[in-house]
Amino acid sequence: MASTRRTFLTASAASAAALLLNQSETNNQMKNIFVHHVYFWLKNPDSKTDMAKLKEGLEKLSKVKTIRQFHIGKPADTNREVIDRSYAISWLALFDNKANQDSYQTDPIHLDFVKECSGLWNKVTVYDSIDA
Amino acid sequence: MASTRRTFLTASAASAAALLLNQSETNNQMKNIFVHHVYFWLKNPDSKTDMAKLKEGLEKLSKVKTIRQFHIGKPADTNREVIDRSYAISWLALFDNKANQDSYQTDPIHLDFVKECSGLWNKVTVYDSIDA
Repeated sequence: MASTRRTFLTASAASAAALLLNQSETNNQMKNIFVHHVYFWLKNPDSKTDMAKLKEGLEKLSKVKTIRQFHIGKPADTNREVIDRSYAISWLALFDNKANQDSYQTDPIHLDFVKECSGLWNKVTVYDSIDA
Repeated sequence: MASTRRTFLTASAASAAALLLNQSETNNQMKNIFVHHVYFWLKNPDSKTDMAKLKEGLEKLSKVKTIRQFHIGKPADTNREVIDRSYAISWLALFDNKANQDSYQTDPIHLDFVKECSGLWNKVTVYDSIDA
């Protein structure tokens, strides 16, 4: 009986390991999300102070409760004709759905961010995407 | 002794629950990633067939092994002055680092995608971002 149980546990462990292996080998498709990607162009693109202020502002902004995941970025070191690398800072925010993104738009933290930081940029482009 | 053990287990379960609760209450910052976001404008934006072909192509493309996570999107139902909702399909791919994105560029699956699908679009804009 003990031996049978041990065999069973070993088989279970092997299945679990195989499952984990499969999971790590399968690329993970994000579904049922609302993708909000914002690109900022600074008024003073060479100002490290303004860059740091905007980054700090985005870190505060990212505390809005309906934001599931976020990334604060800058242009990567890639350069092809189709790549736009003229922006200063990018901000990717993932929401569970449009309602959560809508509530973020009027969240006091967002309104404070606009008040404190909107003087720093001269252009913003936003792409909002849902599952195709 | 049994009672002490039960108390300990109950306390552990409570700690685990508290930890999970904290995690779900903390927004998750994505770090040490390479964000590759591509927006496609179709030659025939009203063709459902072309849209379906591109989506199918992106599903195949997303099997490239160095892609950690991906999202295939379309413009959300948001509409403000700063929002660009003129694209047909967006494709977000997250890599662990630039080397993995570089290897994707020359992956046979990527080359096949370009061969099979590049006739469908008349404009592509790419934003590559790393941690700011």
